[in-house]
Amino acid sequence: MLFQRFESEGLAHYSYMVGDGERAIVIDPRRDCQVYVEAATRAGLGITHIVETHRHEDFVIGSVELSNRTGAKVLHSSYDELQYSCGCRIAEGEAIKLGGLRLEPLHTPGHTRGHMSFVLRDASGEAWMVFTGDTLFAGDVGRCDFYGPDKLTEMAGLLYDSIFQKTLPLGDGVIVCPAHGSGSACGTAIAERPWTTIGLERRLNPMLRLTDRSEFVQRAARTLDYPPYFRQMERLNLLGTADLMPQPRLLTVKEFLQRMPEAVVLDTRMDVAFATGHVPGSLSIWEQGIPGWAGWFIPHERPILLVSDGNDVTAAVRMLYRMGYDRVEGFLAGGMLSWHKAARESQHYATVDGRELCKLLGGWQELWILDVRSEHEVQQLAIPGAHHIPLNWLPERIQEVPRDQAVYIVCGTGVRSTTAASLLQRAGRNDLTVVLGGLAGWNAAGCPMRAK
Amino acid sequence: MLFQRFESEGLAHYSYMVGDGERAIVIDPRRDCQVYVEAATRAGLGITHIVETHRHEDFVIGSVELSNRTGAKVLHSSYDELQYSCGCRIAEGEAIKLGGLRLEPLHTPGHTRGHMSFVLRDASGEAWMVFTGDTLFAGDVGRCDFYGPDKLTEMAGLLYDSIFQKTLPLGDGVIVCPAHGSGSACGTAIAERPWTTIGLERRLNPMLRLTDRSEFVQRAARTLDYPPYFRQMERLNLLGTADLMPQPRLLTVKEFLQRMPEAVVLDTRMDVAFATGHVPGSLSIWEQGIPGWAGWFIPHERPILLVSDGNDVTAAVRMLYRMGYDRVEGFLAGGMLSWHKAARESQHYATVDGRELCKLLGGWQELWILDVRSEHEVQQLAIPGAHHIPLNWLPERIQEVPRDQAVYIVCGTGVRSTTAASLLQRAGRNDLTVVLGGLAGWNAAGCPMRAK
Amino acid sequence: MLFQRFESEGLAHYSYMVGDGERAIVIDPRRDCQVYVEAATRAGLGITHIVETHRHEDFVIGSVELSNRTGAKVLHSSYDELQYSCGCRIAEGEAIKLGGLRLEPLHTPGHTRGHMSFVLRDASGEAWMVFTGDTLFAGDVGRCDFYGPDKLTEMAGLLYDSIFQKTLPLGDGVIVCPAHGSGSACGTAIAERPWTTIGLERRLNPMLRLTDRSEFVQRAARTLDYPPYFRQMERLNLLGTADLMPQPRLLTVKEFLQRMPEAVVLDTRMDVAFATGHVPGSLSIWEQGIPGWAGWFIPHERPILLVSDGNDVTAAVRMLYRMGYDRVEGFLAGGMLSWHKAARESQHYATVDGRELCKLLGGWQELWILDVRSEHEVQQLAIPGAHHIPLNWLPERIQEVPRDQAVYIVCGTGVRSTTAASLLQRAGRNDLTVVLGGLAGWNAAGCPMRAK
Amino acid sequence: MLFQRFESEGLAHYSYMVGDGERAIVIDPRRDCQVYVEAATRAGLGITHIVETHRHEDFVIGSVELSNRTGAKVLHSSYDELQYSCGCRIAEGEAIKLGGLRLEPLHTPGHTRGHMSFVLRDASGEAWMVFTGDTLFAGDVGRCDFYGPDKLTEMAGLLYDSIFQKTLPLGDGVIVCPAHGSGSACGTAIAERPWTTIGLERRLNPMLRLTDRSEFVQRAARTLDYPPYFRQMERLNLLGTADLMPQPRLLTVKEFLQRMPEAVVLDTRMDVAFATGHVPGSLSIWEQGIPGWAGWFIPHERPILLVSDGNDVTAAVRMLYRMGYDRVEGFLAGGMLSWHKAARESQHYATVDGRELCKLLGGWQELWILDVRSEHEVQQLAIPGAHHIPLNWLPERIQEVPRDQAVYIVCGTGVRSTTAASLLQRAGRNDLTVVLGGLAGWNAAGCPMRAK
Repeated sequence: MLFQRFESEGLAHYSYMVGDGERAIVIDPRRDCQVYVEAATRAGLGITHIVETHRHEDFVIGSVELSNRTGAKVLHSSYDELQYSCGCRIAEGEAIKLGGLRLEPLHTPGHTRGHMSFVLRDASGEAWMVFTGDTLFAGDVGRCDFYGPDKLTEMAGLLYDSIFQKTLPLGDGVIVCPAHGSGSACGTAIAERPWTTIGLERRLNPMLRLTDRSEFVQRAARTLDYPPYFRQMERLNLLGTADLMPQPRLLTVKEFLQRMPEAVVLDTRMDVAFATGHVPGSLSIWEQGIPGWAGWFIPHERPILLVSDGNDVTAAVRMLYRMGYDRVEGFLAGGMLSWHKAARESQHYATVDGRELCKLLGGWQELWILDVRSEHEVQQLAIPGAHHIPLNWLPERIQEVPRDQAVYIVCGTGVRSTTAASLLQRAGRNDLTVVLGGLAGWNAAGCPMRAK
Repeated sequence: MLFQRFESEGLAHYSYMVGDGERAIVIDPRRDCQVYVEAATRAGLGITHIVETHRHEDFVIGSVELSNRTGAKVLHSSYDELQYSCGCRIAEGEAIKLGGLRLEPLHTPGHTRGHMSFVLRDASGEAWMVFTGDTLFAGDVGRCDFYGPDKLTEMAGLLYDSIFQKTLPLGDGVIVCPAHGSGSACGTAIAERPWTTIGLERRLNPMLRLTDRSEFVQRAARTLDYPPYFRQMERLNLLGTADLMPQPRLLTVKEFLQRMPEAVVLDTRMDVAFATGHVPGSLSIWEQGIPGWAGWFIPHERPILLVSDGNDVTAAVRMLYRMGYDRVEGFLAGGMLSWHKAARESQHYATVDGRELCKLLGGWQELWILDVRSEHEVQQLAIPGAHHIPLNWLPERIQEVPRDQAVYIVCGTGVRSTTAASLLQRAGRNDLTVVLGGLAGWNAAGCPMRAK
Repeated sequence: MLFQRFESEGLAHYSYMVGDGERAIVIDPRRDCQVYVEAATRAGLGITHIVETHRHEDFVIGSVELSNRTGAKVLHSSYDELQYSCGCRIAEGEAIKLGGLRLEPLHTPGHTRGHMSFVLRDASGEAWMVFTGDTLFAGDVGRCDFYGPDKLTEMAGLLYDSIFQKTLPLGDGVIVCPAHGSGSACGTAIAERPWTTIGLERRLNPMLRLTDRSEFVQRAARTLDYPPYFRQMERLNLLGTADLMPQPRLLTVKEFLQRMPEAVVLDTRMDVAFATGHVPGSLSIWEQGIPGWAGWFIPHERPILLVSDGNDVTAAVRMLYRMGYDRVEGFLAGGMLSWHKAARESQHYATVDGRELCKLLGGWQELWILDVRSEHEVQQLAIPGAHHIPLNWLPERIQEVPRDQAVYIVCGTGVRSTTAASLLQRAGRNDLTVVLGGLAGWNAAGCPMRAK
Repeated sequence: MLFQRFESEGLAHYSYMVGDGERAIVIDPRRDCQVYVEAATRAGLGITHIVETHRHEDFVIGSVELSNRTGAKVLHSSYDELQYSCGCRIAEGEAIKLGGLRLEPLHTPGHTRGHMSFVLRDASGEAWMVFTGDTLFAGDVGRCDFYGPDKLTEMAGLLYDSIFQKTLPLGDGVIVCPAHGSGSACGTAIAERPWTTIGLERRLNPMLRLTDRSEFVQRAARTLDYPPYFRQMERLNLLGTADLMPQPRLLTVKEFLQRMPEAVVLDTRMDVAFATGHVPGSLSIWEQGIPGWAGWFIPHERPILLVSDGNDVTAAVRMLYRMGYDRVEGFLAGGMLSWHKAARESQHYATVDGRELCKLLGGWQELWILDVRSEHEVQQLAIPGAHHIPLNWLPERIQEVPRDQAVYIVCGTGVRSTTAASLLQRAGRNDLTVVLGGLAGWNAAGCPMRAK
């Protein structure tokens, strides 16, 4: 018997492989799908089926590519619009046999109309696991706002029925396997509970405590941020794509400069390195942050040029590829050091640690502090008087940041602040200071806090 | 929040790390403990505590070594005899705080008198996971026969109380984290259910269906195989050991020959390679099989010499080290090929696939077939007329194997048969044939089977 | 300054990278060219030029693919027919500057008409290295027989002039960097001298001792084996190719069987594993042996299916790709063990070690021994009475092997014998025995030898 | 035949392995000697001999440890004081046979009295390579000043005789294999010529052009920097050491702080990260720079604590171990980010790129620029008016750096400047700015230069 969960770091996307006898199945595969082939090979299994719980919006699904590599059949929901040609359909009542195991689909609309969950039953017929896709997460439920405000209440109602009438009755002991963990853009408040069960969710998930249907619907019928890249993901996931990972070119400083005018320059180094000096106009997203943030700030049609510390850029390219960025055209040979050695113009900004900022605050009173954390985080704890613009909305709300004043940028630990600083510099702000250690350091230093 | 399970392959040993805030704790660490240090480093956590559920018998615990590497406090059960000096004690009612989490000990005797389980509670105080050590496994419960036949009933009763009065009441949704998975020598029938919950065990575990105390005690009061190495593990785990992994010497054929008289020669190649030619008198255990079988056949006081296919032997040395084998003195440079190139005497035996053996059977009637699978496996399915000696008892029962007849050896897929063949050759049997593909191939070929 | 030699194992192909300042150049790149990009990245250099010493016959050149990855200019000999469109030309007198270094072409015909060598000079103008391609090797010179017997003498004369008038005068201290090392099909007797110089070759290379032109021409005007795949390599290297490495499918036993009728089944396991049991009709070439032997036995137009020991097949695919095999369509999930578990028919043959064979010889006198080593090796040492057919010619000369007699196959150490056994089995020979340890073991056992 | 060169990065130390038949020999092994064991294993060879050209001063020799791992005999010069007990002696006239090869010692005093070179001859008896230890390098010769000023002339004369009468007569084509490459502290001006020959050295090595003995002696009788750690290396290499690599403890911020008072805090991050914020009083040496610089600034008796970017510190520990630092006691869990999150006090300094500094210079005239490159580099090119203190002497000459003025620190590319900045901060200098891109950037920016 083979059961394996695959976590795509940064994206907080979970995919799963289950196998028994001679065959394995993959649920919601990611685009760089060599990992599934390797795991199956080690276990001596063929991959014969791929199932998708729904059409994902936050990453590019790997079904077509994995099917090309294995000959596996791709199964879509019968309750949904037709998807790409190589896919087939599966409906409630049908099941996939894997040795002694059975995987049974469950139509669970709410997040999307055709959303399917899958129940894994053992030889005795007992439910063991349920793959809930984007309906039920640890500590949260899926969003219901993809069909517009008119349908919000209807979809939230469907979600209630799916969870309360189909999923929870499977029993408290059943293990819940969602498509996302903490940190995903598909839920506002997915909990840091890497493994969970129906019983745990019934006790700990605030949404599941709302057993009254209308109360649940009222709370679930919320409209959340709709990142610009979701549309692009949906398009790709509707058509299916099998493009291979791009291989960006090795570029000298000179070649890099020639390609710069049309491109987005993406610097993947950590915060402290970026602060000291970077290519003017470059966007900073640290490597692990790409899945969460690239989609907000990089249009899919623009070519991308990478700047690193001189190391291999494959991990960054892979993360961009998972988000549908297939135009990663080059990277700077030797990284930022080459840029400095060639004496090309560079930009920088200041940094300060929490303890120092705290002292400054006491003296000058009037520092303009920009907090770029999420609404959810700010509600827990914040710096009194700080201005709050969540990182993802910074480009839209950039006019709120003053031009004539020093701006101190703060986030959780200092990495998101760096992305914010790069966005502000691109928008012409110059007097910027990033707070190292972020709120964590601020808090540890005993500086004044406000719990909202 | 950090939660990670570490599986020691072959041994089917699970250890766990849980961390939050700045600190992490490790439960039942293995001896090669660099993995915990690396995981904590990546997460930016210090390891401040190590807990042992009980004194393990089937592997060497890594507490002392890990404590040396981290400064972590080692916590033992207050209900048990005193263990090694660097250890401290913990009792019910005390708890370890990790950021927002709490780890609470639960005295759960039965497997041993002082056995402790640990409940992990989240910030709200709800139970999330229970680390059950060797009391409750997926599909099985711990053995109760370590204190001799006189105490069997008493210990089985304690086990019942621990499980039914302390563990199960935590609630169906709680995730069960035992010290072993399927394949371990610590249970007879641990199920292939890599993740489980209290609810699942209540429904699927045959022992937990025996809710009547006396019925449970009757079934649990069984005496199981007591491998000879358990005594050695207990001794090491009582004293604590921090010896580093041995670094065996690179040996030429000549040097290897000089050391052979006193040593056990262990050949770690796969079955098919061993059949063709091996060092006379060598014991065959494929690399992944070492944790499960070395303890039965290799005395701890003998030096060990390794033969491989010429590749790195580090994985084999690590597995032996986990079992307390610290006298791995050398390995053959260039592997078995060097032996053949030096024209040293070699041994071999025949192989046959299931389909061929099946044909032979039809014709000759009277083949002597030796099935070395476990009692449990034989009960599911067997070849009619085959003689059954479980691999672990083969040395003791070797007189049952005829000297004057061809012997066909069969197991599940062919790898354990190879170990059996090497044991039989060491005992002077020569007319041996291993069945490639084992019962799996026999079955697939449609040869006659008996379901006991 | 960066200088790096890249050895393609098995193929004994050497390629080189030289860099200084901001730029690097690659000489005769292989097809899987990520290694050059990585080395340049680490050194902070762009790759701006690729040079080819000549149109290679024994592997697929990676110039087009590497140019796509780097934007490098591909430079061909001005003295040769026009090659693929993205290439440019370079002639004697021109030079490439790399920081303080200069790379100067030297027209050195003989192996081909347009063959170029390249002299690397340091800042002072002194010659430091010479990249000799296929003109001058350690212990040998390039072959001159590619233009047919009519041109043999003419080409050998050109080779003499190239070496004696252009290369040797560079000075004894100059380091010789050829395109091949020991084991290549491009020379008969390339010496095991991994680094060499003009001075060493003048003293140790038997061909360079023939300072008299006519004597040299007489010896160099030899016709060597012309492997069937050379034609395919030439075609690909004339056109240029940028196809990516194939990604074979993961196949279950059933899917494998469906594809078998049209395919070549290639088993890449080591000798001893193959002997015990293999897919009927499969060709055995151990992984490292693929570059040297696949070209002789696998037609380029046939699809290839791989059988391994269950491990990753990427290394085998890469080696096939270097030889222009782009139709590697699948591999068996779980390797040969899956085949046996599915009870599919398998083939095997016997093995014996040198010591045992020696005893047999004494008794029966009349064993039919087949030695598949090269002419060159047989001249050094051989078994009296053995029949000699070099492995590469075995398919053509298979009628020389008797059908009605046991055949004992011997090579250097036992690996090539396995390939021979698989070829003989495909041709219907059944009574086969491979000699483990080969001539090395035979010799070490003190069995009778003949030095020809 | 096996020939392999092993380069210890940073240290520019070369060791070598030569093997043939069944045996291999290692010349001047480094302390972390697993690499030799692995290479021999792959080649199927035993390591039977270890030779040392002389008692090294700049790294800890690995002979005892490697001998423990292999049983190899350690051979020292017969012309030298007795070394550690497990060693034996070898003198001119004796030779080591390796299959068809011979390794012959040559007494070549000058660098030390007992220094030996080793000539590798092939089966024909011709010299192929010479392992010259610290007598002859690419572009330089060994230093002669280890016995004090009184013996300088005598030792330089011995060196002349060793090179001109023993080494050079081997012939121009012989490959020179020294113990060090470019970047080592054992020569002032070792050239960037990674492979060289006697012929090349005769033409290109400025010292070998001095064929007149007295002229050579005059130039070679120079006294060079004597780093403080040389004494420690000599002591360890005289006694022999087999201590294993230390395993530093994983430390939380709190534990780190407790250990700080006695320890040297070594920060191994790259320049740009260190500038932004670091532990007060910490020494900055980037990972690859450790072998070259740690010995100058870290006393061997002090415990060391490491700060990284949160990644594995094994590479840094290995480099320190090679230099005899066995007291690496801990590293900060989570790296510098943990420090900031805990809001501990941090230090920083400014950075500027070459282009910006150039503008400042024009305006203010009077910037105090500190160039920390070597004398050799400064002679090639320098900034007019810059003050020159080589990095290694900075602690001794720190009084030359003004306290009341802004100091701009420049080196080749910016990394050594960072070490300098950390030394200056430890000495109480605060107004510091490091020039990113160093002289390379300065030059590329077209700023005013002076060629001395």
